[in-house]
Amino acid sequence: MAYTAPVRDYQFLFDKVFKIDGLTNLAGFGDASLDTVMQILDEAAKFAQDVIAPLNGPGDKQGCVLNADHSVTAPDGYKEAYQALIEAGWTSLSGSPDYGGQGLPHFVNMAFSEFLTGASSAFAMYPGLTEGAIAALTAGGTDAQKALYLPKLISGEWSGTMNLTEPHCGTDLGLLRTKAKDKGDGSYAITGQKIWISAGEHDFTGNICHLVLARAEGAPEGVKGISLFLVPKFIPDADGNPGERNSLHCAGLEHKMGIHGNSTCVMVYEEATGWLLGNLHEGLKIMFYMMNNARLGVGLQGLAIGHASYVAAAEFAKDRLQGRALTGPKSPDKPADSILVHPDVRRMLLESRSILESGRAFIAWVALQADLAHAAEDEKTREKASDYMALLTPVVKGYLTEKGLKVTQDSMQVHGGSGFTEHFPASQYMRDVRITLIYEGTNGIQALDLVGRKLPSKGGRSIMSFFAEIDAYVAEHENGPKTGKAPEFVTALKTTKAKLQDATMWLMQNGMTNPDKAAAASMDYLCLFGLTCLNYMWAMMAEAAQIEIDAGSDDPYYDTKLKVGRVFLERVLPEADSHLLKLKSGSEALMALADDQF
Amino acid sequence: MAYTAPVRDYQFLFDKVFKIDGLTNLAGFGDASLDTVMQILDEAAKFAQDVIAPLNGPGDKQGCVLNADHSVTAPDGYKEAYQALIEAGWTSLSGSPDYGGQGLPHFVNMAFSEFLTGASSAFAMYPGLTEGAIAALTAGGTDAQKALYLPKLISGEWSGTMNLTEPHCGTDLGLLRTKAKDKGDGSYAITGQKIWISAGEHDFTGNICHLVLARAEGAPEGVKGISLFLVPKFIPDADGNPGERNSLHCAGLEHKMGIHGNSTCVMVYEEATGWLLGNLHEGLKIMFYMMNNARLGVGLQGLAIGHASYVAAAEFAKDRLQGRALTGPKSPDKPADSILVHPDVRRMLLESRSILESGRAFIAWVALQADLAHAAEDEKTREKASDYMALLTPVVKGYLTEKGLKVTQDSMQVHGGSGFTEHFPASQYMRDVRITLIYEGTNGIQALDLVGRKLPSKGGRSIMSFFAEIDAYVAEHENGPKTGKAPEFVTALKTTKAKLQDATMWLMQNGMTNPDKAAAASMDYLCLFGLTCLNYMWAMMAEAAQIEIDAGSDDPYYDTKLKVGRVFLERVLPEADSHLLKLKSGSEALMALADDQF
Repeated sequence: MAYTAPVRDYQFLFDKVFKIDGLTNLAGFGDASLDTVMQILDEAAKFAQDVIAPLNGPGDKQGCVLNADHSVTAPDGYKEAYQALIEAGWTSLSGSPDYGGQGLPHFVNMAFSEFLTGASSAFAMYPGLTEGAIAALTAGGTDAQKALYLPKLISGEWSGTMNLTEPHCGTDLGLLRTKAKDKGDGSYAITGQKIWISAGEHDFTGNICHLVLARAEGAPEGVKGISLFLVPKFIPDADGNPGERNSLHCAGLEHKMGIHGNSTCVMVYEEATGWLLGNLHEGLKIMFYMMNNARLGVGLQGLAIGHASYVAAAEFAKDRLQGRALTGPKSPDKPADSILVHPDVRRMLLESRSILESGRAFIAWVALQADLAHAAEDEKTREKASDYMALLTPVVKGYLTEKGLKVTQDSMQVHGGSGFTEHFPASQYMRDVRITLIYEGTNGIQALDLVGRKLPSKGGRSIMSFFAEIDAYVAEHENGPKTGKAPEFVTALKTTKAKLQDATMWLMQNGMTNPDKAAAASMDYLCLFGLTCLNYMWAMMAEAAQIEIDAGSDDPYYDTKLKVGRVFLERVLPEADSHLLKLKSGSEALMALADDQF
Repeated sequence: MAYTAPVRDYQFLFDKVFKIDGLTNLAGFGDASLDTVMQILDEAAKFAQDVIAPLNGPGDKQGCVLNADHSVTAPDGYKEAYQALIEAGWTSLSGSPDYGGQGLPHFVNMAFSEFLTGASSAFAMYPGLTEGAIAALTAGGTDAQKALYLPKLISGEWSGTMNLTEPHCGTDLGLLRTKAKDKGDGSYAITGQKIWISAGEHDFTGNICHLVLARAEGAPEGVKGISLFLVPKFIPDADGNPGERNSLHCAGLEHKMGIHGNSTCVMVYEEATGWLLGNLHEGLKIMFYMMNNARLGVGLQGLAIGHASYVAAAEFAKDRLQGRALTGPKSPDKPADSILVHPDVRRMLLESRSILESGRAFIAWVALQADLAHAAEDEKTREKASDYMALLTPVVKGYLTEKGLKVTQDSMQVHGGSGFTEHFPASQYMRDVRITLIYEGTNGIQALDLVGRKLPSKGGRSIMSFFAEIDAYVAEHENGPKTGKAPEFVTALKTTKAKLQDATMWLMQNGMTNPDKAAAASMDYLCLFGLTCLNYMWAMMAEAAQIEIDAGSDDPYYDTKLKVGRVFLERVLPEADSHLLKLKSGSEALMALADDQF
């Protein structure tokens, strides 16, 4: 039941599909040759498998403890593992070289993050939250703030958190009550209570930098009066070292269904000293840099836990001898065949895998867009990549977590009764993955963001650009120079994209006049969008695999890839039709009930 | 977040849809007038809500404890609640009057069981398992065995368990190793280890009657050498009272993801005294009486937990103020609208409810078949009802648990972050319901049973009879005397049934020659079958509601019913298309991978 990192998949993606060796002329890509990247990922896999994965099960059972002095003790071994993590430099892979980072492309860090998260999602959240703080500081910090905080956050010596939610206010941040009082010396006194603060308190790092949404005195009501503050656990002294203890503390730990190894804190701020990040009343703008980063991370978490659970299920299925194949015994010398002989067991495993492999390609492709948005030579490519990032972030977060849950469910089912016991890891994976559909904006919020903000943004430029890219791909592979490598994937992509376009037209015609219709359709639209993206990834992967086979490769990886892809076409893609039918049913039936009829 | 039993739904079903007052001439139905039944269910609801539901959350947190002397302590309050349960006679509702039961139809007991299970599924399993033992004894016991055990099991003074699984043998019972040695005095010495024995040990009852599958000396290998034994915790003395302690004990409790309040035991038998039930080597036949009963119970469990989680989610949604309606504030006097204004929240709630209301009708209808199979006056009706029971048991078990999980997932999602914490019941419902997809035969096994055994049984008589019933219903309501009451439901039913028939034809043409194809299609076929059944229930319910409205009723229940039904047609039924597409994709892609490619 050991975790195995999907190194070979990334090698295939980076070498044969996205061909990163062709990108080394781009700014910042110089050190990211395929060889270098794969050396890094080989080491990353070892670290994830050998150092982190063994902590995952015990950490779930032990959980975190809040001590009487408000300190929090994480599960045994977490602190040491965190030290090993930062000493090896894993947290600084994609950090800016201006602040001590290694400056590698985001897609390298994304692959590393999948390994770390797959090995232990609860552990990976400790460094994961810091990435959000880095994004916010990079976007909104002053030069002095960056110089003080970024090197220590990038090295992992300090960590970061996001403080948004209050008991009465989750999605609706306009309701928030935490107050910030100008102390007149450039700092503010922050007072309030925040809940569900992941990695809010621990003893891994010399300091914890809380990024806190609060309302300054005299600020306008609603979301237009929210500012973002940096509130460190220890106030840095003149040398930038942790000094005086700030007046904030963890007042409680949340009892949760999963991710027990992560400390989910109730944080209390009592006139704690904080500094404004960015402009007053414009906190949401910077918060969204942090949030978008976090949303991609959550999509990745869905994928990573899904992969870990698939690995456990496949291993279980190979070992579990039970019954005989319907077509006659496959292991007549044994008391029974392995359950891998059963089509329905294979269905669960292969549907899962077809989702995971294309989901991995999808998230790697999106990470590549994040790099291109900064590093591409021409303005047009940068703009398009930036558009894609905005458009696809809710799809990555929403769809990969929906499917991540499905994969963990099926992986548990493959285990039969054993999966429901805590002796096997299936239960933990399912309990851990479940939060990914909820936090950093529920998937319903992702769907609304996609339909209400991202589609109409800039006159629909992003979605039109996405459709044009797929049309061009289909044209090139249907009748163009690249015809015939994986024709069934191209035909399917053409059809799926037509369904998504149909749905998009329906939204434009119906959602503008009645926003309830857009909202009622939004989740099915997000899923149809996700299916289209995965279909696109499968088309590219199948083509790449077929090219290798045609060139004489006898590496079974390519043969397997095509077979798994076929399962995607036959067993996952048909969901597109029901999503399209459902989303076009409108909102009338949903809105017809009065509140008291529920 | 209190549990509320769906009394009104059963009143509607029994009064307006299945019209039980027209059945009181049947044997055993005499006391089951609508008035009597509803009086019973009103009391049952109070008992479930007031006595049982308060134990559910605490029981989950406390769990069961195995003591040094092998006794098991259930959560606080369980023992007293069990006493209250049997003192009020709830366990004997449908028990045979020959053995002290009340002789009420099964559909009454099924409704009561939904309430009890919805209030606490972990608790309800203690009396629930006894029902299986009663079924097995009724089917296979000698007159003396029945006289000794049935009255005490029906009254609940004693309880029962099912002992099938061993560590190396779950689905594949042919592998089982537990031994039975003929002692020559009419009894056997049973030796072996059984796992996952629900309610295997507790101190609620004077005796626990374990029904144990074992292999007698010299028995043939495989399933043809399995016999069923009754192995009581205390050997009854000459007066039928618990006597000598039998040499069996609970050696461990399973650590599970959910149903913590139920003791899931490792049972060890060391030459324990047992008595054969039925014929030697024919244990599986009798075991299936018990198993079929249990499978219906598990389907009910999926429904019942789903309902409980819907109730909690609807209540949460009404209370949670967050954001504003997209079409403008609905509660301008409050700081925010309730989240019930959001179409996607309503989508989750109403999809759930449309499944639950028709799932409830389905299971009540199947319970009515169980009654008709015994009580109907003519042989043909009895035969048809008996056919239906066999055909539909895997659909009830498989589909209602699949959908039960979906409902608990959506109910958690409605809660947002709160749902992931253990302060709200959503997590427990999800953790509890998850086992229903697994035990008493995984849903994959149900699907194989449906496709491989139930469809071809008796030359396909059952499925042809089911299709003929739906055809007749459609004809009567499309162009016959009952035209026009709920035409969209009838049209949908006609279409859905055509899809199921198409799938059935495909199975006959493809599954006979290649059993892998049948198995690969089986789960989608089961789901399509489930959708057809729920569609049929919705057609009957919508018609009944419309008749009341046309007759001038202003009871909002009927209006709500039609609105919820419309959500079923628009938001759930479209899944039929993707199931049909998937199942026709065959098994080639699934079987293409070699074992080492997983």
